[in-house]
Amino acid sequence: MQGENAYIDWLRQRIPSSPRVLIGPGDDTAAVTWGAGPACLITTDMLLEGTCFTLEDSPIQVAGVESASPLRVGHKAMAVNLSDIAAMAGIPVAAVVSVGLPRRGGRHLGEELFWGMKERADEFGVAIVGGDTNSWDGPLVISISLFGEPGPAGIVRRSGAEVGDWLIVTGPLGGSIRGKHLDFIPRVREALALSSLVRLKAMIDISDGLSLDLSRLCKESACGAVLWSDRIPKMPGVTLQQALGDGEDFELLAAVHPTDAKRLLHEQPIEGIQIHAIGEVVSVGLWLDVDNCRKPLDVSGFQHILQ
Amino acid sequence: MQGENAYIDWLRQRIPSSPRVLIGPGDDTAAVTWGAGPACLITTDMLLEGTCFTLEDSPIQVAGVESASPLRVGHKAMAVNLSDIAAMAGIPVAAVVSVGLPRRGGRHLGEELFWGMKERADEFGVAIVGGDTNSWDGPLVISISLFGEPGPAGIVRRSGAEVGDWLIVTGPLGGSIRGKHLDFIPRVREALALSSLVRLKAMIDISDGLSLDLSRLCKESACGAVLWSDRIPKMPGVTLQQALGDGEDFELLAAVHPTDAKRLLHEQPIEGIQIHAIGEVVSVGLWLDVDNCRKPLDVSGFQHILQ
Repeated sequence: MQGENAYIDWLRQRIPSSPRVLIGPGDDTAAVTWGAGPACLITTDMLLEGTCFTLEDSPIQVAGVESASPLRVGHKAMAVNLSDIAAMAGIPVAAVVSVGLPRRGGRHLGEELFWGMKERADEFGVAIVGGDTNSWDGPLVISISLFGEPGPAGIVRRSGAEVGDWLIVTGPLGGSIRGKHLDFIPRVREALALSSLVRLKAMIDISDGLSLDLSRLCKESACGAVLWSDRIPKMPGVTLQQALGDGEDFELLAAVHPTDAKRLLHEQPIEGIQIHAIGEVVSVGLWLDVDNCRKPLDVSGFQHILQ
Repeated sequence: MQGENAYIDWLRQRIPSSPRVLIGPGDDTAAVTWGAGPACLITTDMLLEGTCFTLEDSPIQVAGVESASPLRVGHKAMAVNLSDIAAMAGIPVAAVVSVGLPRRGGRHLGEELFWGMKERADEFGVAIVGGDTNSWDGPLVISISLFGEPGPAGIVRRSGAEVGDWLIVTGPLGGSIRGKHLDFIPRVREALALSSLVRLKAMIDISDGLSLDLSRLCKESACGAVLWSDRIPKMPGVTLQQALGDGEDFELLAAVHPTDAKRLLHEQPIEGIQIHAIGEVVSVGLWLDVDNCRKPLDVSGFQHILQ
């Protein structure tokens, strides 16, 4: 769950607290109490053609952006929601899918999209339980809402990082637009494994760029951070600037006690990923450490601009 | 939750049954078990500019359709979802909201929309717990997912109608496009009141037109129905054909035992609405009774056509 920061802030001020709402806007998922059952984690993400993806055989193309098959777009639509549940160390359960399909070719497109969404959903035991199918003269729109439960170690939020904590990431960053943004496997299993091994004090998935998402985690935790420029893992052929700002990495960024961080770095206990320590929580400011010299971190990344 | 019928059928065949899924596609909401808590009812509806509404001050206008303020569009977006929970005799709890806003004027539009959604949500004790805010060059898109719990009498489904049951509706039909489709109050309270008084054997909200939604209820109940043409309540100035096919009435259509129906008709126990008996469940076929003569019912109504 994301959106333009200022709008989310505006929303938060206007949403009255309700006794059932454990977590409202401003985290990766909301959480609502559900009787004697586990809390219900809820997230939603909307994908818009020409903004979040471009489609093969569509008149809407964007310079420099490779167009994708409906199957891959379906993968992405489900995976971005799964990534939000992963960011809370949650267990995904069920999803509903709304689509606005272009009239021409909409049936075939809808079916291919569904197969893509279902493939990712099946991998994580998620049932697609319903949806709303529309046709119109506009571009393709997909909106998925995903429901989940807290993992055994409880809900991990963006708040909770403390001065001295180390910042860890679950994989290399940058250059996602070359294909990873469509094909990534959300870190649901890795988040649950991590939460069973160490206390994850705060976590977020990197959707809009390391520096921007770090700034969100720090805002919720009321702290600052230093990133160690030489330790940030980068995808092949990617610059530091791209690793900091490209976004759509969908790796997890977490704050853990330094002892835990060192143990994870040494043991690398999670199959299939390498954990990197990339910085430290400080009291105030966002900084980039280059050659032992701290300079202000440029908070770049993807933001929806509204006028 | 709606969509093109054939697509929903296609979906249903491809969704494997999961032990947690109590109700999948093909009803007004899905239902998933939630540990020791009540089942989680889930519905979603997407509204597209130029298809489901037109906006004041927008370049997208449709001949014959009055344009609406963002506040009224917000009312509708929340109310159509509340109506799906009402159709299950459920209690709405929480919602997430995704929007695709046109870049120009998107902030003001987003705020006005939110106030409209929040007004309807507040009336029914629903917390808006999060969402996803996007901007793009396309028309306005709104997708809401709403979560609820079963009411005290349990979940009412589309299936369950039996031969001999009477069909009742909660208010006059037709002509919704003149304004009701934006301003209607969903029948959440009325559904709960009805379910406490009689056994609602099957129910659906009339979103796409009486004849089309009746055909859906009959399909799920594996039965037919006769509508009594002279007893169908109509909005002022509306023809029988319009009452049968206009859609977006958002009244409830339910099947109840004739004894219960007669009691409801006589007592009219629900404040603010008048209950009408409009037909009877039969074993097969959809029929319209005109002057004691049964003729096949023309199943008209709104359907999204995909090519």
